[in-house]
Order: sequence, then structure tokens, then C-alpha cells
Amino acid sequence: MPTPTALPLAAVRLMGGVLGERVERVGKVTLLRQWDALNDRIPGAEPSHAVRNFRIAAGDEEGEYDGLWFQDSDVAKWLEAACYRMSFAPDQRLVAAVDELVDLYERAQEDDGYLHTYHQLTPGAERWSNLRDLHELYCAGHFIEAAVAHFDVTGSIRLRTVAQKLADLLCRTFGNADGQIRAYPGHPELELALVKLARASGKKCYLDLADFFVRERGCEPHYFVEEAQGRGETKSPVWAYYDEQAYWQSHVPVVEQTEPRGHAVRAMYLYAAMADLARETGAVDMAESGVRLWNEMVAKHLYIIGGVGADGPGGENFSAPYDLPDDRSYAETCAAIGLMMWARRLLDLRLDARFTEVMERALYNNVLAGLSQDGCHYFYVNPLAVNPGETRRRYDCKMVKTQRVPWFGCACCPPNVARLLSSLGHYAVSRITGGLAVHLLTPLELDNDGWRLRIETNYPWTEAVEIEVKRAPEGCTTLAVRDLEATWFLNEEPLEETSISGYLKLTREWQVGDCLSANIPLPIERVRAHPRVTSASGRVALKRGPVIYAVEEADHGVGLTSLGVKRDAVLRADTDPRWGVTVLTGDAVRESSPATLYQSDQNPQFETTSLRAIPYAWWGNRGEGEMRIWIRDYES
Amino acid sequence: MPTPTALPLAAVRLMGGVLGERVERVGKVTLLRQWDALNDRIPGAEPSHAVRNFRIAAGDEEGEYDGLWFQDSDVAKWLEAACYRMSFAPDQRLVAAVDELVDLYERAQEDDGYLHTYHQLTPGAERWSNLRDLHELYCAGHFIEAAVAHFDVTGSIRLRTVAQKLADLLCRTFGNADGQIRAYPGHPELELALVKLARASGKKCYLDLADFFVRERGCEPHYFVEEAQGRGETKSPVWAYYDEQAYWQSHVPVVEQTEPRGHAVRAMYLYAAMADLARETGAVDMAESGVRLWNEMVAKHLYIIGGVGADGPGGENFSAPYDLPDDRSYAETCAAIGLMMWARRLLDLRLDARFTEVMERALYNNVLAGLSQDGCHYFYVNPLAVNPGETRRRYDCKMVKTQRVPWFGCACCPPNVARLLSSLGHYAVSRITGGLAVHLLTPLELDNDGWRLRIETNYPWTEAVEIEVKRAPEGCTTLAVRDLEATWFLNEEPLEETSISGYLKLTREWQVGDCLSANIPLPIERVRAHPRVTSASGRVALKRGPVIYAVEEADHGVGLTSLGVKRDAVLRADTDPRWGVTVLTGDAVRESSPATLYQSDQNPQFETTSLRAIPYAWWGNRGEGEMRIWIRDYES
Repeated sequence: MPTPTALPLAAVRLMGGVLGERVERVGKVTLLRQWDALNDRIPGAEPSHAVRNFRIAAGDEEGEYDGLWFQDSDVAKWLEAACYRMSFAPDQRLVAAVDELVDLYERAQEDDGYLHTYHQLTPGAERWSNLRDLHELYCAGHFIEAAVAHFDVTGSIRLRTVAQKLADLLCRTFGNADGQIRAYPGHPELELALVKLARASGKKCYLDLADFFVRERGCEPHYFVEEAQGRGETKSPVWAYYDEQAYWQSHVPVVEQTEPRGHAVRAMYLYAAMADLARETGAVDMAESGVRLWNEMVAKHLYIIGGVGADGPGGENFSAPYDLPDDRSYAETCAAIGLMMWARRLLDLRLDARFTEVMERALYNNVLAGLSQDGCHYFYVNPLAVNPGETRRRYDCKMVKTQRVPWFGCACCPPNVARLLSSLGHYAVSRITGGLAVHLLTPLELDNDGWRLRIETNYPWTEAVEIEVKRAPEGCTTLAVRDLEATWFLNEEPLEETSISGYLKLTREWQVGDCLSANIPLPIERVRAHPRVTSASGRVALKRGPVIYAVEEADHGVGLTSLGVKRDAVLRADTDPRWGVTVLTGDAVRESSPATLYQSDQNPQFETTSLRAIPYAWWGNRGEGEMRIWIRDYES
Repeated sequence: MPTPTALPLAAVRLMGGVLGERVERVGKVTLLRQWDALNDRIPGAEPSHAVRNFRIAAGDEEGEYDGLWFQDSDVAKWLEAACYRMSFAPDQRLVAAVDELVDLYERAQEDDGYLHTYHQLTPGAERWSNLRDLHELYCAGHFIEAAVAHFDVTGSIRLRTVAQKLADLLCRTFGNADGQIRAYPGHPELELALVKLARASGKKCYLDLADFFVRERGCEPHYFVEEAQGRGETKSPVWAYYDEQAYWQSHVPVVEQTEPRGHAVRAMYLYAAMADLARETGAVDMAESGVRLWNEMVAKHLYIIGGVGADGPGGENFSAPYDLPDDRSYAETCAAIGLMMWARRLLDLRLDARFTEVMERALYNNVLAGLSQDGCHYFYVNPLAVNPGETRRRYDCKMVKTQRVPWFGCACCPPNVARLLSSLGHYAVSRITGGLAVHLLTPLELDNDGWRLRIETNYPWTEAVEIEVKRAPEGCTTLAVRDLEATWFLNEEPLEETSISGYLKLTREWQVGDCLSANIPLPIERVRAHPRVTSASGRVALKRGPVIYAVEEADHGVGLTSLGVKRDAVLRADTDPRWGVTVLTGDAVRESSPATLYQSDQNPQFETTSLRAIPYAWWGNRGEGEMRIWIRDYES
């Protein structure tokens, strides 16, 4: 198997800046609060019951299963996040909680390896009886990811042993051989987890099972169709109302899929696994299909904030091309995380900044928006426009929360954002053939594989970046850096190398004290969408670097639909004293409110006002109010 | 009681033109097809079972109740429409069907007067046990309206006797006295029907019951709250998800209501009854409250097509002020009909063209759109924008049909549009103190109360109107005509009278041969909406006279969101050879499609193309495709 490209998290220390500060807050606040939430110790929050389900399964408590049927995954994602955190910032409270969970997992597991507390505790629930809906394979995936993280960080094989016992059961149960079930997970996730377990254990059988799951998906006869017929089901569940098999990405074999379809989080995890398998098995069809799906997503289905998922009964499905409404955008935090996971894996296949650009866009906008400034309130759905009066009256906006909340009954997003941010080092830099690649320009110190690097910058707020080589491996090695359209200097001499696919690849004998530097251009951009995107028609979004901006009622009063900027308006980037972020200011225009609902043959009247646009991810931290990204594009 | 203002339909003959032709098609095609539908004789249409329920209740057939719990109302609305039709265009098939129904109603009624086949045939269903949801009072209202129409047209008291027996039961059952139920209908309709029955029978007790129902509504303790508690209900049904008591307009007493709320059809029927009661009882509070609600609706809640209802789990509720999305507009055909009923009654309180303007707007756009050119396909929901690819993928558009259909499981609209159009004479002209008022300028012949008038016009397509007096009552009488901002002539001499509230009121001794004439200005108007209407922001709608225009894929290809007109574009009104309607043509502009979903700092590129806008009500008669009313407003 190829060498893992991710560096140990202890080797990549984020040192402040937007990202480093968020990572710290997650470690010091979020993870501890989430442990309380998983243990039902937050007054007023929607109850979880997730840890209690494990205690009951382990025989420590009496009681009945409660919560959604995939509640186990919340615990696993939290455990994975806590392990990452422990690897670079030990905390005795986290260590104790992790140890408690390891013990619970060991004792909750059945003798043959089975582990899913919903099925274990629910009378009449039969294993593998509804693989399409009941998420036992999804939960297995998240647990395996956590176990691999635990092994990587602690070196202990206790949890990995539990995971392999479960994975061995899955290997016996699923496959093409006689007596095996020719199925695949209703919610992809296990596939990429099995790849991780194969890498951690060196056992190829797990990789083979992942490959089976991915390749069997969508083949005829459709397993989910037969399974549903076996249950006597006469119509698809409401969440698959429109897409039916495509909801589960199981309408055709994945290597034949050309358009992202169905539930967005499922799609992201599946496509991420396809990229893993392409790298691990060298399968060209898997790599090509992934890039095709990526291109189609970027061309027709991607929200400007780096989000996906525009509709569906729950709201979380891909919709038709260009159908990207802003007031009913789902843009689930988990889907943006999944998008980052996919993009990061595509970078392993091909170092190309078009993947990095989307990964960074998703991070700075959709993902960071999912977590409040205080580190303990969350968005699940991330709307691009909110008008609380309308949102509260509209049934089709009922999934939109106008303020972040402390927890959810369906709490997939909070621990997911914690694990993403706690493992951000995996996204910032990676191993490439013969060296290292830097993907995210953020303050950090790297110390691994003979390298010691220090990145100093206040990007994305200011332009200057310095990458100092404090130690380098012997001989000729490569350092690849996203060029971001800047002129780069080595020890103050401009570099002559040409970027390839947005990365400057510098191969040389690096010396201690070498310093790469650049001023990343951060102009204020006015972004237009394709005119078929109705919500953006006649409008622009403001962007600076990877950061998308939004206007809020707190700065502009109500009625934001009429607020806009003229094409010749001069906009400035200023530092906001409250959060230290860069806000955009300048002259804005808004259409005056006429006396009647409709007016004939009157040109609109305008007023001049002041614009103050804040980074989208910071919206909703000043009380409830209107917010929107797409503002009017006034010609003159 | 005041004299009824509606003339007998036999006295007002619509003679061709847009309206007359629709009325004829309803009489010759629609009513007969609907009779087939109600008898489940249309292959491929959703079944009705409505007539069969009556046959079972009358003991003519064995079987069980089927259809929605308000299926009786479909039969009653059809019967009312058929009676209207018979009064001016006898048809033996209609007469036979009407006689069959009269017979069924007589035999289906219980001895004490009760009549609601759902409750009569459903085991365990208890009378008056769920007045909020189960529509027995709503169905009683529609039946009473039909019975009054039957009496007015035939002079037979057979059906009116059935209706009075039912109404007498209601008078005994509901009210403030000991042993009476202090309730009101969950779906208003009975209130205005009881006013009609009081007029037809001369019995004031029916008027009193209507007044009780309307005034009791919203008083504390709330009947529906207590009734729900009695049922052990712990949460409101999904259709009242947001508005709770306001869904039923029962949140506060009606005379204290200031904003239209809740289910739009319910609201329209209730407000119509309030206007009736204001006229019949002289209640000033009822009149004032109605005008206040009207003004608020027109200022913040009215679709440009004369429609109401923007959201809700079923989609049919009033939403927040200015929340008028175009792709998810409900604008139910029934709600526009209810709006016409309300407007027509407000004209009885005060002759003011602002009511007429909305009534006419609803008629020519929302109501006519509800019925296909062939007279046998229907829209229930009337979207202002359709993109079939998106509509089919979007769960929140699932109530939107992109093509008219032959029938609905919930078929309130088809017989409602048939009864509205069959009684259009009631809306075209009315009695006023000392004379007559002409509200709709459409070809017709009137012969009543000593008057014989003939209106000749091709309005709303062309400007010329002539109203010829063929006979006039003795002495000084008044003829009031909507002025429509035209200069009016009497026998080719310009009139000097000043219009009052949009009506020219001419009081004189009319002579045979007198001819009123005018050229109604019909400029092509570009209408803008208040900038808080997001779907219309930066857009205009085209309008000519009362007619709102739409663009269709059939003329412009896909991607209509980018199509628009420049402010200085010259638009022309041309006659369409296919339908004989006026279409608008001229130069249009559309934004070019860029290669990527998002572009930074590029001004949009434009292409010139030809505009062809058709009257909105004619959309969807050329196969499935995109349609929209609000098109881009390009400055230059």
C-alpha cells in the first residue's frame, strides 16, 4: 500500500490565526462541552442519550435505547476528534473520557464482533435487515475511523482490536461468495474507514471489502430494491421522494455516475472513498469517475460558500443543475466537511489547486459557519440568506435555524466539525513524492520527516506569507506551495519556477534559514453566478481570498434584498475590532421602499448608504436578524 | 333585508370575448366532463367517488365512503354551477343530472336534517366531534349555496327544503344558549351560505346564525383549543404548523384582525361573509375590519396575478409580509375565486374601483389560468415561475404541477372555477341604489329592471367600448361604469361628470339609443414590486390592462431567469393567431451563459433576442416547459 500522505498531527502545530484559534477553541471548549452533551449534561439542549446507549449495551446501566438509530456515530466522531486533540495537546479530562469509551466499546461488543447499540438494544431489531436505512454499517465506519485514530495517537491496539473484530465480522458477512450478503451501506462512510483500517493494520482484506462495497453499489439487481421488496415496502421513504435509488447513490454503478445525485453527505463520503480506492488500488476508472463527478459538481451544484445540498424532504439532496436557492440552501455542515475530505483525497491523486481552492472555500465559509464564536453553538443547515420573519412563517424553511443552537436531536454536525478542526493539520500539509506540499497558508510549525518549517502569515486577512526552513532533509527534496497567483521569493530573490496546476514545486537542497515569501493578492472580488442560478440573478457576492462576505441586519437594518453596490463603488478592506477579521466597507445603494406593493412605469428610486460586509462564517453572532450573501448588482 | 344586488343570470348574457367564450366552454365541455369525473368515468383521472358516496348514503348502493372528508362539497359546487348554467342555457343532460342529485340529497338526508355523507357512512365518526378539521359545516355551506341557486333558477323548493331542514338543525345545535355548541366552522363557507339562505327564505334566524359563527370566531376560550384538548390532541396538525389558531382565522375575534393570516381560501370565504353581514346587519365594525384586512392584503400579501397564499405545509397559507416567492407560489385557484367573491361583496358596501381592479386582475389571470383552453384540465396551484427540471427535483415544489391535469384527489378547484365562470354575470354588473353598475367591460346583453343594455368591446385586447341603451327605466336613473382612466362620451359628446372612486356615475333620464363610448387606455406597463419581494427584485412584470404577461420556454428556450427587457425597449401589442389574444413583442435581452458557475470581476455579457410574452392565463397550453412572469429589468 502507498505511504499515507497525512503527517502525524503532533508534527503539524497550528499557531494562531483564524484556523489555529478555532482549533484551540475546539480543544479547550467544544470537545468538553460535547462530552457533556453526549452525556446529557447540558440543560436546555436536545438530549443525546448516545453514551448512555453504550452503558446500557455494556451492562453498566438498565434502560432502553434512545435517540436516532445512528446515535452511536456521534460518540465515534467525538472519540476520533478527542484522539486527534490528545495527540498535540494532552488534556486529562479528554484522556479520561477516551479511556472510558474504549472500555465501553470493548464491553459493548458482542462475541462475534457485532457492535451497534441500536440493534443490540432494540427488541425485534434484526442485524443487517435494513442496510439501506438503519445505518449499522455507517456507525461501524465511524467507529473504525475513531479506533484507527486512537491507535495512531496512543499506539494502543485495544480499540483497533475491537474494530478489527467488527471488520472481520463484516468481511465474513458481506461479499460475493456463497452465503455472503451482496450489499453495501445505505449511508457510505464504512468504505473510507476500511481503507484507513487496512493501512493501520496492513490487512488487505479490509481494502478488498471497501472495494467490494463501492463497486457493488448500483449494480443490478439493486440490493436496496430487493431488500425493500423483502420488507414488503410499497414506496420509497419520504427522504428519497424524488431521487429513489439515486438518493443512496445506488442508481447505477459508481464508475458510471456522471452527476452528483442524492443525499449530499452520503455522496461526499462515497466519492472520498472512491478517491482512496483509486490511490490504493490504482483503479483508473475510479479516479476518472471521481474527477468527472467533481467537475460536474463544481460546474453546476456548488454553493459559493463551498457547500452542497440544495433540496429534498430533509433538504439535504443535490437538486437540478444550477438550482441553488439561498433561503433554502441546506449546505449542511457535514456535507462541507465531506467535501473537504473528498478534495483532500483528490489532492493525493493529483496535486491540483482547483481541489485545494474548493477545500479552502468550504473550510473558511461553510465549515467555520457551522460553529459559533463561543465554540458551543452550531448550525446544521447553512442558509445563504435569512429573513427571520419569513423563515419562521415558511414551512419550506423549517429546517433553517436563524440562530446557532447548543445541540441537535440529530447531532451529526457538531462532533464532525470538532473532528475536522482537530485534524486540520491533515489538510494543511501533506506528503508528496519526494517531499511536502503546503495546501493551507496559515501560521503553523511542522516538524517531521527531517523537515522543520515555520509558516508565518495573517492570511486570509493580510497578504504577507513567509515559510522558513528551520531544518531540511538531506539531499534534493521538493517543497510544493500553492502559488495563489502571487510572485514568490526565495531569500528575497524572485523565483523563476513556473507553477503547475496552481502549485509552485521547488526541488532543491534546502538550507536552514531558507525563506520563501510572497504577498498573496487579496483584491476584493465581485462574484457573479451563472444566470441560471435564480437566487443570484442580477446580484453579486463579495469575496476576498477564500472568504465570502455577507451583509447583516445588525449593520443595515431590515430589507436586505434591495441592498447592493454599484459597479464603480470603491470598497475597502478594514479590520473589525470585535473579531479581528477583515470586513469590507464602502458606499452601498438600496432601492427605496415605495408606498405600494406594485408600481407601474416608475423607475426605482435609490438611497445611498454605507456597506459593511462581514465574513460569512461570522454571521449570526450578533443576535437574530436578516443576512444575505447575494446583494444587488447596480450598474451605476 | 336589503335588496340583493346580483341580477338573475338569465338577465345578463355574456356574448363572446375572452370571458363569454370561457363561460360557453364551461357550459358545453367542462360541466359535462366534471359530471363524469364526479361519477368516476374519466379514465386516468384521480378518482372522486363523490356521487357514489351520496348513492350509498341514499341506500341506492352498497359500499363504503371513499375520498377526502369534504368530498360532498365537490358535488355541491358542481350542482350550483349546473344550476347557474341552466338558467341561461338549458341542457337536458344537465337538467337530468341536477334532478338526479336533488333526489339523492332528499333521500340521503337524515330525519333530523343532518347531511354529510362522510360522517353518515364512516363507522365511529361522530357528528360535530371535530368541527375544526372535519368540514361538515363547510360541506353544509356549499350544499346550501347550491340549494339556493337551484331555488333561484327553477323556482322549485325541493332542494331549498332540504337545505332549510339542515339549516334548522344547525340553528338548534349552534349558538350561545344552554345546550348549544358555542363553535364555528373549521373552514368558513357556511356563513356566507346562510346569508344567501336567509335572503332566499326570508328567515332571519339563518342570518343570526351566520352572525354568531363570525362573531364567536376567535373569542376566548377558543373553541378549537378546547375541542382539541377534549380529543387529547397534543400538537396542532401539520397544516397549522406555524400559524396554529391563525390558520383557522380563529386567533382573535375577526373584528380585531388586522393582517390576513392562515389558510387563504378559508380567509377569503370568511372575509366575504363579513362583508355580507356588514351589509345585511349594518355592522360598522364588520365593514371596517374587512376594509382593513383588504388594505393589508393588497399592500403586502397579493400576488401580481391577483392570487393569495404563499406558503404552509400544504402551501396555501398567507406568509409574512412581502413574502411572495414565484416558484412556490400557491395562489390556489379557489383562493383567487374567494378573492373575487370578497371583492364583489365589498363593492356592495362601497362602489370603489380598487376592489374591482383586484377582482378583475384575479379573474383574467389567476382564475382563468386554473382552466385549460380545452376546458377540461386544471391547475390547483398557480406558480408564477416554473422550471420543470427544478420543480421535479425540489421537494418544496411538490405541490406545483407543471402541466394542468384532468382531476385531483382533492378536487376543490375544478367545480369552483366552473361555478365562478357560470355565475360571471353576478360579477359583471350589479344593482346599486337607483340604478346599475357595470364592473367588467365585456361583451354582454343585459335585460332586467326595465333596463336593456348592450356592451360591445374587445377589451382587454383592444380599447374601444360601447354601451348602448336599448331600453331604460322610466325617470331618472343611474348608470355607473368603471372609468378605467378613459375619457367617456355620451352619443359622441365628451362627458363632464367626474369619476368617484374610479366609477363614472351618470344619473339622468336615459333614452333608447343612448350610447356611452370610450377608448380604454391599454398601454404596455412595466410593473415593479416592492423591493422586499425577493422573487421580483431587480425584475419587472409586463401588464396590459388587467392582463399579466408571462414568457415561456416555447418561445425563448430554457434559462428564462436571465431574460429581460431594457428600460428603453419598445414593446408592441400584437394579436396571436392561435388564441386571438394579445401578445407582447419587442427586443429582449438575455445574459449570456458563462463557462463557469461563478466568475469574478467580469461584467455580464448580453445577447439581444426577441421577446414574446403571452397572457399568463394562457401559459402551459403548448407542452411542458419553463415559464416566468418576473423578468429582468435591464437598465440600458
